[in-house]
Amino acid sequence: MSYFPDISNVQFEGGQSSNPFAFKYYNPEQTIGNQKMKDWLRFSVAYWHTFTLDGADPFGAPTMQRPWDHYTGMDLAKARADAAFEFIDKIGAEYFCFHDVDVAPEGNSLKESQQNLDAIVPILKEHMKSSGTKLLWNTANMFVHPRFMHGAATSNDPDVYAYSAAKVKKQLEIAKELGAENYVFWGGREGYESLLNTDMGFELDNLANFYHMALDYAKEIGFNGQFLIEPKPKEPTKHQYDYDTASAYAFLQKYGLQNDFKINIEANHATLAGHSFEHELHYARVNGILGSVDANQGDLLLGWDTDEFPTDIYAATLAMYEILKNGGLGSGGLNFDAKVRRTSFEPNDLFHGHVVGMDTFALGLKIAHKMLEDNALENIISERYQGFQTDIGQKIVQGTTSFHELEKHAHQAKIKNVSGHNEMIRGMINQYIRETD
Amino acid sequence: MSYFPDISNVQFEGGQSSNPFAFKYYNPEQTIGNQKMKDWLRFSVAYWHTFTLDGADPFGAPTMQRPWDHYTGMDLAKARADAAFEFIDKIGAEYFCFHDVDVAPEGNSLKESQQNLDAIVPILKEHMKSSGTKLLWNTANMFVHPRFMHGAATSNDPDVYAYSAAKVKKQLEIAKELGAENYVFWGGREGYESLLNTDMGFELDNLANFYHMALDYAKEIGFNGQFLIEPKPKEPTKHQYDYDTASAYAFLQKYGLQNDFKINIEANHATLAGHSFEHELHYARVNGILGSVDANQGDLLLGWDTDEFPTDIYAATLAMYEILKNGGLGSGGLNFDAKVRRTSFEPNDLFHGHVVGMDTFALGLKIAHKMLEDNALENIISERYQGFQTDIGQKIVQGTTSFHELEKHAHQAKIKNVSGHNEMIRGMINQYIRETD
Amino acid sequence: MSYFPDISNVQFEGGQSSNPFAFKYYNPEQTIGNQKMKDWLRFSVAYWHTFTLDGADPFGAPTMQRPWDHYTGMDLAKARADAAFEFIDKIGAEYFCFHDVDVAPEGNSLKESQQNLDAIVPILKEHMKSSGTKLLWNTANMFVHPRFMHGAATSNDPDVYAYSAAKVKKQLEIAKELGAENYVFWGGREGYESLLNTDMGFELDNLANFYHMALDYAKEIGFNGQFLIEPKPKEPTKHQYDYDTASAYAFLQKYGLQNDFKINIEANHATLAGHSFEHELHYARVNGILGSVDANQGDLLLGWDTDEFPTDIYAATLAMYEILKNGGLGSGGLNFDAKVRRTSFEPNDLFHGHVVGMDTFALGLKIAHKMLEDNALENIISERYQGFQTDIGQKIVQGTTSFHELEKHAHQAKIKNVSGHNEMIRGMINQYIRETD
Amino acid sequence: MSYFPDISNVQFEGGQSSNPFAFKYYNPEQTIGNQKMKDWLRFSVAYWHTFTLDGADPFGAPTMQRPWDHYTGMDLAKARADAAFEFIDKIGAEYFCFHDVDVAPEGNSLKESQQNLDAIVPILKEHMKSSGTKLLWNTANMFVHPRFMHGAATSNDPDVYAYSAAKVKKQLEIAKELGAENYVFWGGREGYESLLNTDMGFELDNLANFYHMALDYAKEIGFNGQFLIEPKPKEPTKHQYDYDTASAYAFLQKYGLQNDFKINIEANHATLAGHSFEHELHYARVNGILGSVDANQGDLLLGWDTDEFPTDIYAATLAMYEILKNGGLGSGGLNFDAKVRRTSFEPNDLFHGHVVGMDTFALGLKIAHKMLEDNALENIISERYQGFQTDIGQKIVQGTTSFHELEKHAHQAKIKNVSGHNEMIRGMINQYIRETD
Repeated sequence: MSYFPDISNVQFEGGQSSNPFAFKYYNPEQTIGNQKMKDWLRFSVAYWHTFTLDGADPFGAPTMQRPWDHYTGMDLAKARADAAFEFIDKIGAEYFCFHDVDVAPEGNSLKESQQNLDAIVPILKEHMKSSGTKLLWNTANMFVHPRFMHGAATSNDPDVYAYSAAKVKKQLEIAKELGAENYVFWGGREGYESLLNTDMGFELDNLANFYHMALDYAKEIGFNGQFLIEPKPKEPTKHQYDYDTASAYAFLQKYGLQNDFKINIEANHATLAGHSFEHELHYARVNGILGSVDANQGDLLLGWDTDEFPTDIYAATLAMYEILKNGGLGSGGLNFDAKVRRTSFEPNDLFHGHVVGMDTFALGLKIAHKMLEDNALENIISERYQGFQTDIGQKIVQGTTSFHELEKHAHQAKIKNVSGHNEMIRGMINQYIRETD
Repeated sequence: MSYFPDISNVQFEGGQSSNPFAFKYYNPEQTIGNQKMKDWLRFSVAYWHTFTLDGADPFGAPTMQRPWDHYTGMDLAKARADAAFEFIDKIGAEYFCFHDVDVAPEGNSLKESQQNLDAIVPILKEHMKSSGTKLLWNTANMFVHPRFMHGAATSNDPDVYAYSAAKVKKQLEIAKELGAENYVFWGGREGYESLLNTDMGFELDNLANFYHMALDYAKEIGFNGQFLIEPKPKEPTKHQYDYDTASAYAFLQKYGLQNDFKINIEANHATLAGHSFEHELHYARVNGILGSVDANQGDLLLGWDTDEFPTDIYAATLAMYEILKNGGLGSGGLNFDAKVRRTSFEPNDLFHGHVVGMDTFALGLKIAHKMLEDNALENIISERYQGFQTDIGQKIVQGTTSFHELEKHAHQAKIKNVSGHNEMIRGMINQYIRETD
Repeated sequence: MSYFPDISNVQFEGGQSSNPFAFKYYNPEQTIGNQKMKDWLRFSVAYWHTFTLDGADPFGAPTMQRPWDHYTGMDLAKARADAAFEFIDKIGAEYFCFHDVDVAPEGNSLKESQQNLDAIVPILKEHMKSSGTKLLWNTANMFVHPRFMHGAATSNDPDVYAYSAAKVKKQLEIAKELGAENYVFWGGREGYESLLNTDMGFELDNLANFYHMALDYAKEIGFNGQFLIEPKPKEPTKHQYDYDTASAYAFLQKYGLQNDFKINIEANHATLAGHSFEHELHYARVNGILGSVDANQGDLLLGWDTDEFPTDIYAATLAMYEILKNGGLGSGGLNFDAKVRRTSFEPNDLFHGHVVGMDTFALGLKIAHKMLEDNALENIISERYQGFQTDIGQKIVQGTTSFHELEKHAHQAKIKNVSGHNEMIRGMINQYIRETD
Repeated sequence: MSYFPDISNVQFEGGQSSNPFAFKYYNPEQTIGNQKMKDWLRFSVAYWHTFTLDGADPFGAPTMQRPWDHYTGMDLAKARADAAFEFIDKIGAEYFCFHDVDVAPEGNSLKESQQNLDAIVPILKEHMKSSGTKLLWNTANMFVHPRFMHGAATSNDPDVYAYSAAKVKKQLEIAKELGAENYVFWGGREGYESLLNTDMGFELDNLANFYHMALDYAKEIGFNGQFLIEPKPKEPTKHQYDYDTASAYAFLQKYGLQNDFKINIEANHATLAGHSFEHELHYARVNGILGSVDANQGDLLLGWDTDEFPTDIYAATLAMYEILKNGGLGSGGLNFDAKVRRTSFEPNDLFHGHVVGMDTFALGLKIAHKMLEDNALENIISERYQGFQTDIGQKIVQGTTSFHELEKHAHQAKIKNVSGHNEMIRGMINQYIRETD
C-alpha cells in the first residue's frame, strides 16, 4: 500500500518551476566543489515532526491528517514506519532521526517499552536496508512522560535517574544495531522550573556522571558514533542547563568530556538564546565542536520554538558557509527538526515543507560555495587582520611578547582605523544570493 | 568647599521615615550573623555614573547638574575627585571603582594620558587615606575612544592591541599603588559588529594571550588583587564574547585561565543575556567563580542596558541569598554600576539613588539571612534530593554505579513524583519580604 | 463526597503564619476605605485552569492529579462541577468564569454540544444558588477545536463563522440564564499565522459585523452584562488582532463599538505585548474602557504565556492602585486566569496557588489604598503639573490658545526643568510595601 | 569645492558588478507597471543620519569622518548643506528630509534659533532649485535638548509646551516655503520614563490640542502637505504614546484627527513594537492611513533602534508589495532613516549604504510587481475566501444576517478546512526572489 502520492516524475525542475513537489535547486548528484550536493547536505527527516506529531498547540487540538492514524499501538508503529520510509524515499533524503517513543509506543512498564522497541527495530532495519536510508542519530525521549517533570539525568529522584539510564542504554544498543552515526542528548527537562527549589551544582555533577557512564557503555558495546549535545536555552523549562553552545562547552570542559562530545546546533534554539544561527555554528567550529545541525528556523518576533521549515536564504547561506569552512559536518548532517504549520495539515504539506527546506539549503550551499571560491569574505578578512602577519602583530599571535614591549610599541605607533564596510559586504551578499547560478 | 548638602544628621531613621536622604534599612554597624551589615555588603560607588557621566542618551543631550562641571581638564579631574570623596563619605560607602578615563582626562598622546593619571593618583590616594575609602577595583576604559571601534585586545589591528596593553599595564600599576582589591575586564568592544568580517577564533586566541600577559605583569609588580571578567551579551556591539558567565567560563577553561579569574556579575547584563540575576550568581557560585557584583537593575521590557539603581526587593533578596551561601564575596563587593535617570538630574538625586540602592540590598541581606537561619529553602531542597543520600542514589553521586546497575534498578523501582510546590514557595518568599524585621 | 481537604479552620492567620492553606493578608470582611476587601477584589476562580486543564505542555504529557478524572463524558462534567464549587467555596471566592467546553464536553454535532450544555447549566445554577457563587463571565471557546484553525469570526470560511455565531449565541443565552455580569471575547485565533495568505481588512470587517450581531442578540434576549474584549498579542497565532488595549480601542472606535465594549486586561498578555500590567490598566482607565482583570503573571525572561499565579507585590500594588483610581472595576473582577506549574500537580497546590494569589492582591489593595490615603503619588503629580492650573497652562488645557500665542509666550518664558525624582519615588514604594500594616 | 568623489560614471551596472558605487538593481528610469521605478520609490536621504550625526553610541565617542566637520556654527550649517546636496545629487535621490536642528544650529534663544533657520532656508531653497531635489518632509526636533526631558507637547511644563508649539510653527512655515510634501511628528519624548509620576490622560488631551492647533496653523498659512505621525514603542523613553500604528490610530480617532493624519512607518520601529514591517504597512493600508515610510531595518536579536540601511530582500519585497497594493505612497516616499555602522566611518560608506538600500528596495519593487502581475498571492487569497462570495458568506459581508440565521446555517453546514499551505507559499516567495529578472 502507499500513503503518499507518486512524485517521482516531478523531481528537480529548476528555478522556474511552479510545481510545489519539484525541487528547484536541490539536485543531489550535482557536484559542488569536491563532492556531490547530497554529500555536503546529508539531509535527514525527523521522525517525530513528520510522522508522529499531530498539530496540537498549547491552545489547540490536533489537526494533522495522517492516513496511518487509524491504527493504534504496535500496528500504528508499524504503519508509521511504512509511511516514514515511503516518504523518506520519495523525498530523496538519505538519513533519518528518531526518539525511542517516536518509533515504538511506551509500554506499561520499562520492560514492555523495551519489548516494543525490540519488535520495531528489526522492521526499521529492514526498511533501512531495502531503501538505503541511514540513521543520522537516535535519542531517548526523556521529557514527555510525567516521570521526567523534574528532570531526567538531573532529576531530584534517583529512580528517575536510573530510569533515564535504562532508556539511554537501550538507545545506545539500538544505535549500535542500526549503525547510527551519532547519538544525541537534548536535555529538555535538564534545567529548572524554579531556582528556589533547585541545587544546580548537585544536578550538574550527576549529569556529568551520567554522560561518563554513557560513554563507558558505548565503548563496552562498541558503538563508535559521535556523541552530541543539543543546546536549547528554555522551553519547556524556565532554564535549561545546555543554554547554548558556550554553556555546553563550559560544562564539557569542567567535567573532562570535551573530547568525547560535539554539539548539535539547532537554528531556532540559537535564536531563542539570543544568538544568530551562524554565530553558534562559527563558535562551535572555531572551538572544534561542530557536530551536526538541526535545520529549521524560528520566528524572531515570537518567543517560543516554532520549528519552522527553513526558508530563509540568508540563514541557509551563512550556515552552509560555516559548514564548508568546517570541511563539512563529518558524521553529522542536516536534520529537518521542523514541522509544518498547524494549518498545513494535509499530507502533501509534508512534501512542500521538505522541498522548500531542501531547496533553501541547496541554494545556501551553492551560494556559500561560490563565495568561498571567490574568496569573497576571505579576502576581506585577510586584509583586515594583515597587521598580525609581521613584527609585533606576529609576536602577539605567537605569544612571544609582553606588556613591556607592547607599551613601548604603543608609544610610537600611529593607529589608523579602517572602515569595516559592513554595508558594502551586505550588498555583496545580496548579489551572491541573486546572481549565483 | 562643599559640593553636596550636609546629610550627616539624617542617617538611618528606620522604615517609617519619609526623609529621602535617610536610610530606612541600611544600618552599617548592625550585626547580621557573624559580621556587620557593611562587611557583608561592601558597598562601592561607581565613579563614572555618579561623577562623570552627563545624562546624554542616544536621542538626548546632557542634562545632569554637577556643581563641579564648570572646571575643565585637570582642574575638572581634581574637582571631581573632591566631589567624589565628599559624596562617598557622606553616603557612607567604603569602596569606590573607576575606569582610567573617569579620574583623569585622556591626553593627546598615550604619554600625556599616563602623565595625567600620574598627577591624579596621588590625589586619589590622599583622599582614600583621609576618608578611609578603599578601591574595590579599577579598570581601563577600552571602549569609548574611536581607536577601539573594532575591539581592544580583540582588535584586528596590532597597534590597538598594543595600546590596550599599555592601558591595562598602567591600570595594574595604579591598582597596586592604590591597593585595589580586584581588577576588572569588561570587554565592551571585545566582540563583533558583523560576523561577516570577523575571525572569532583568531580574536579569542589573542584575547587569551592578552590575559596571560596581564597575569604575568601583575605577578611581576606584586599586584595580588583578584582578576575579574564582567560579562555582557551585547551593546555596544552586536555580540560580545563574554556573553554571560557560562561563556566566560568556557573561555577561561579553554585557555587555562580558570584559576586566575573570577566573574563580576551585573544584574542588568544578566537579564540582557536572558538569565535572572540570581541564576548568574548561582551558576558562578557552584562553579567557584563568583567574584564581585555590579548592583543595579534593568527594565525587562526594554532591550538595552538601563543601569537603574537597584530597587527590587525580590532581586536583592535572592542575590544576597546566593552571596550568603557563597560565604560572602571575598575581595568583591556590591558596586553601584547604576545611574540616576536622565530626568533625575539634580545633585540630590544622587543621594536618593544610592539611599534606595543601599536600603534595598540591606533589606535583601536581612531577609536572605533570616531565610537561611530558618533553613527555609534549605529544608525544601534537602527533602527534595534526599533519595541521593542512600543506596543507588548515593552511588550515583559517588560515581560508583553503571548503566547496567541503573537499568536493573529501574526495572524494579516505582517512581513517585512529588510536587515542586512552586506557588507555596513563592508565597513563603513574600512572607519573608513582608515580615522580616 | 468531597474532593478536597477541609481547610475551614485555617482561613486567615495573618502575616506570620507558616500554614500554606491560610491567608496571611486576605481578610474578606475587613473594611478598606468605603467597602469590604472582598468587594474591591471580587475574586474569581477560572474553571479551565483549575478544574479542566491537565498540565500538558508542548513537550510534556499531562501531570495533574485530579481526583475526579476517572469519570468521563457528562459524568466527568458533573463531577468536575461538584469539585469546582467545593473548591470555590473552600477557597472563599465569590465568582467563577468558564468557557463552554470547560463545563460540558463537546458533542459530535453542534446540536449535541448544545444539549450537553443544556444538561449542565441547571446543575451549575443549582450550585451557584446553594453556594452563593456568582458568574463573573462566560465565553465560547473558539480556539481549541481544529475547525477554528484559521480563525472563528475572522475565519476565511463562512461555515466556521456561522458555527462561531452559534456558539456565542448559546453562551449569551447561558450568560442570561446564570446572571453573568460580563461576557468575554478572547480572539485566540482571530489573527493570522501568515500575512501572506490573509486579508486583514476583510477579516476585521467581518469581526465587527460579528460583534454587532452579538450586541443585537444580547439586547434581544435582555442580557445586560458588560461586553469585554481580552487582548493578547500572539500565541497561539503569529499575530492576534486584539494585540493590546490600544489595538482593541482603535478597532472598537473604527466600527462604532466603543460604547458597548470594555477591556478585560490580563497581566501576562500585557507583558507579552511589551507593556507593563499597570500601563494597560492606566491606558484603559483614562480612556474609560477598563472592564475587568485576568489576574496572573508572566515570566519576563520567557516569551510565552506562562499564566502563573500572581505573586509579585509590586505588580499587584500598582494594579490595585489603578483599580482604586478607577473607583473599582464595576461589573468586573479579578479572575485568576492562572495555573499551577506543571510540577505542582498535587491537588493541594491548587489551594497554595489561590492563597498566594489572593494574598498578593489583598496586600496590593492595602498598600495601594494607603498610598492613595496619603496622596503619596497624587501630591507628586499635582506638583509636577501645577503649571497647567493657571495662565497659558490653563488655556492649553481648555483648548483656547493658538500657535501664535504659544510662540509669543515661548519667546519670553524661562524654562526651568525639575527632576522627576524617579529613584526617590521607587524608594517610597518600597517603604509602602514593607511598612503598610 | 567637492566633498565626495565623482561616481557619475559608475551608475547602474546591473547585477554582476562588483563596484560598490554602482547600482545593480536600481535603474530610475526603468518602467515598472504604469510608472518609472523612481516614482514608485521616491527615495529620500535623511539629513541627520547622513550629514549630521557623528557615530557616537552610548559607550563610544564619535567616529565619523566628515570632510566638512572642521567648520563650526553657521559655517558648518552651510558647508553641510553644500555636502548634502552634492551627495543627494550624486546618489540620485529626488527627496530629502530634515529636523530643524539638522540644518541650522540651535541658538542661545528661541529667537536666535529662528534666525539661524531664516538664514539657512534660502540656501536650502537655492540648492533644491538648482538640483531639482524636493523636500519629502521636515520636522521639529523636540527630543534632544534637555528642555524636552519630560516631553514636548506632553510635557508637564506649559513653558515647554509653548516652546514646542513655537518650533512646530516655524517648521510649518518652512514646510510651506520649501514645498514640503508632508510634515512629520515623531514623539520621541512624548511618553513617560515612569508611570508613577505621570498623568497619561492629561498628557494625551494636551497632545491632541497641540495637533489641532498645528492643523489650524497649517490651514492658516496654506500649507497643504500631509500630516504624519511616526510611531515608535520606546527608546528614548520607557514607553512612547505612539507605540505602533494601532496605538496612533486609536488616539487619532478618539480626538477626531483621523482624517487629517496618516502614519509614517519605520521598519525598525515596527519590529521594536513586536510587529513585522509588512504588518504595520498592511494595517495602515487597510485602515486608509498609510502615509510614508522610513526605510531601514533593525536587528531582531538586539533590543534597540539600530537604524541599519535596509538590505533584507524579503522585507523590501513585502514592503513594496503593500505599497503597490496601496497604489503607491501618494505624497509619501521611502526615506532612508538609516545610518552607516559606527565602524563604517569613511565618507565612501555613505555611498555604499545608500546604494545597497536603494538596490534592495528596487529589487523589492521588481519582485513584488512580478508577484502582483502573476496574481501570485492574490489567487491564493481569492480562493481561500471564496465562500464569502455567495449565500450566507455574502450576507455576512453585507451585514444582512443575524445570529439566528447563522446558527441555523451552522446546524446543517459541514465544515471542511483547507490547508493554508504556508510552506508552499514561502517556497514560492523564494522563487520570486531568485528568479525575477
